[in-house]
Amino acid sequence: MLTRNERSSEDVTAMMAEIGRKARAAARPLAMASAERKHTALLAMADALLRNKAAIMEANGLDMAQGEENGLAASFLDRLKLTPERIRAMADGVRAIAELKDPIGEVIAAWDRPNGLHIERVRTPLGVIGVIFESRPNVTADAGALCVKAGNAVILRAGSDSSNSSAAIHACLAEGLRAAGLPEDAIQLVPVTDRAAVGEMLKGLGGNIDVIIPRGGRGLVERVQTEARVPVFAHLEGICHLYVDKSADLDMAVKIAVNAKMRRTGICGAAETLLVDRACADTHLLPILKALAAAGCEIRADEETREFYPEAKAATDADWTTEYLDAIISVKLVDGVADAIEHIEAHSSHHTEAIVAEDAAAVERFFNEIDSAILLHNASTQFADGGEFGMGAEIGIATGRMHARGPVGVEQLTSFKYRVRGTGQVRP
Amino acid sequence: MLTRNERSSEDVTAMMAEIGRKARAAARPLAMASAERKHTALLAMADALLRNKAAIMEANGLDMAQGEENGLAASFLDRLKLTPERIRAMADGVRAIAELKDPIGEVIAAWDRPNGLHIERVRTPLGVIGVIFESRPNVTADAGALCVKAGNAVILRAGSDSSNSSAAIHACLAEGLRAAGLPEDAIQLVPVTDRAAVGEMLKGLGGNIDVIIPRGGRGLVERVQTEARVPVFAHLEGICHLYVDKSADLDMAVKIAVNAKMRRTGICGAAETLLVDRACADTHLLPILKALAAAGCEIRADEETREFYPEAKAATDADWTTEYLDAIISVKLVDGVADAIEHIEAHSSHHTEAIVAEDAAAVERFFNEIDSAILLHNASTQFADGGEFGMGAEIGIATGRMHARGPVGVEQLTSFKYRVRGTGQVRP
Repeated sequence: MLTRNERSSEDVTAMMAEIGRKARAAARPLAMASAERKHTALLAMADALLRNKAAIMEANGLDMAQGEENGLAASFLDRLKLTPERIRAMADGVRAIAELKDPIGEVIAAWDRPNGLHIERVRTPLGVIGVIFESRPNVTADAGALCVKAGNAVILRAGSDSSNSSAAIHACLAEGLRAAGLPEDAIQLVPVTDRAAVGEMLKGLGGNIDVIIPRGGRGLVERVQTEARVPVFAHLEGICHLYVDKSADLDMAVKIAVNAKMRRTGICGAAETLLVDRACADTHLLPILKALAAAGCEIRADEETREFYPEAKAATDADWTTEYLDAIISVKLVDGVADAIEHIEAHSSHHTEAIVAEDAAAVERFFNEIDSAILLHNASTQFADGGEFGMGAEIGIATGRMHARGPVGVEQLTSFKYRVRGTGQVRP
Repeated sequence: MLTRNERSSEDVTAMMAEIGRKARAAARPLAMASAERKHTALLAMADALLRNKAAIMEANGLDMAQGEENGLAASFLDRLKLTPERIRAMADGVRAIAELKDPIGEVIAAWDRPNGLHIERVRTPLGVIGVIFESRPNVTADAGALCVKAGNAVILRAGSDSSNSSAAIHACLAEGLRAAGLPEDAIQLVPVTDRAAVGEMLKGLGGNIDVIIPRGGRGLVERVQTEARVPVFAHLEGICHLYVDKSADLDMAVKIAVNAKMRRTGICGAAETLLVDRACADTHLLPILKALAAAGCEIRADEETREFYPEAKAATDADWTTEYLDAIISVKLVDGVADAIEHIEAHSSHHTEAIVAEDAAAVERFFNEIDSAILLHNASTQFADGGEFGMGAEIGIATGRMHARGPVGVEQLTSFKYRVRGTGQVRP
């Protein structure tokens, strides 16, 4: 006889398999939908979000009350909370995605062969995308809209703490799909169940999920990377570095350091470690550290830095690989760009690194020898963002090297195929 | 106390872990190696292959003798066999790879932002590539050279039946790396051990393999897809279709059908199923089938086709999903392009499909609605090949939709990163 748990787990498996089949079935009409039809659907989704603001607020109120009862952290509750302004921003976000250029069918490359064959590489959808996310309910709208724009079906798995909010938002997306005559199954929201649903998604639902995108904390991303049997666009943590070279303009270095660390400390593009060229320690180190401290930043430094700035706490080994997501920075003196590169290659999560320098040779070396998704010269690490790159909305910053790297926007959610036109050619 | 087997498996684990660490260590100098240095290394590899022809032939003689003793199939022994001509062709192949444009550092896209940031997307290596292959020893040279050209380190795992040949070829590649001052560990050949070595590679050697490329039969590819914990460029079988529309030029259809099926029956781009538009069955069916039969092809057909051509054997359901790799073709009548698309989407391995038609609307529909890596119009499916696409050598045809699709040449073995140049910008 089955115990209650086993039965429940079998039910989840069957439910998820059905969701997978529906997504695959919806993927084909969506892949073939015209740009106009997808545009119509996305605008209708945005309208529905505004029209149903009250219902979304009410659903969010249930989640907030439950979250407070469950004693969730204030930062978590802040991410969970929706306001009329946040709902409007969500609708604006969907509208902005609607207005992006439709990627599907775009000819990315074309060439002719000596035998007269004309070859085109053409953008196509990826298929079915699984998105697993945590607290922020707006991911429901962002991810749903981005996937549809790129012609993909999507299976969304929201955190259980935001289940009411996500369901209310999802109802608006479904309304938009219906209004445009697109299959509602193109955006499915997994009903709240236990974590077994996530496990099923990671197994790929019998070939019916083509790629998984986790959006959440380290625990989620690590679980996904360990268990997933399908490709993953992993958004690892952002252990981002700022290196100040001896050739750096001091004012610029101060301004960029404060912005990279303190503009918003909770985003993945925030700097976590500051490396300063030993050759400019006398001139540059103190002004930068004082500006950071004045902005409210805690400084954890190596021994040598503390000789210059005794107010700093002593950094431990763990500090060089910690994503604080807080007003804390680790600081270290290095021997020029070569030493900075060594430190970064050894400790970075390969997300984003910046150099402040006037010496072109140092910049070129930094750009060539560091293998991170985004490298910046004389600019803040906080520009690591799809919107700032001009890609429109993004679903995260991929830190892997396969398929998508850096901001994952509409284009990164596509694949391609080859179209070859001949006039009767056969191969000799 | 450990049994002998357990000890051996631990030894394999330790050996493979060491190979992984060495590959990762070699990947960085290789990623930063100049185009010129890689060019030098590849030419030196080609020279070494020619200079060591006798040693390679001798090693191959050992494999052939062992293979005959083990009763390997004649077709397997033919793939295993090396001749002076085949060695020369291998060296020519490596030389051709040397002469390809170096992909690393290429700016794939560049744009400016309103705030003055200049963004570039630049090609980078993938990292460490694991290639697992079976009988053909020349894959050692092809895969090694392609990976090095793209700045990657590679771990090669040859079939045990070709171990002596592969080792002799590998020695030449190592000679080329040495001659150019590149780390020898950039191309490692896993010593012959049991299948445990493959299992270790599929687990990713502790993060030291970035992608696995299996090159071999269905058994190998399926094992890789089931067990791999790292991304895979899967080359599934090629169940390629040829559709002859009612608007097809008959002579062209005959010529393409015979070429697509019979030019070489053992390659993945060979056609396995012929779909003929019912509307032209009276005119087109018999000439095509008779030409195929005259070329030595066995025909397995649906009931309706057999009414036209009773000499055909009856096709079973299995025939629609079988990659014969032999002089056999399955044949079916369909109701125009829509029905052909339905059949292909249901039975194809999404490798390559061709349409013969003069009706532009039918061609567009075929091109838009079929989601296979390569679609051809009025040309033979046997053009599904990196060389024929003008990409130079290839390591296979990827049938997945992630990262690489279609021929996997040098460019497909790369990733990219972003370089952003500013003048002191901070994010508002």
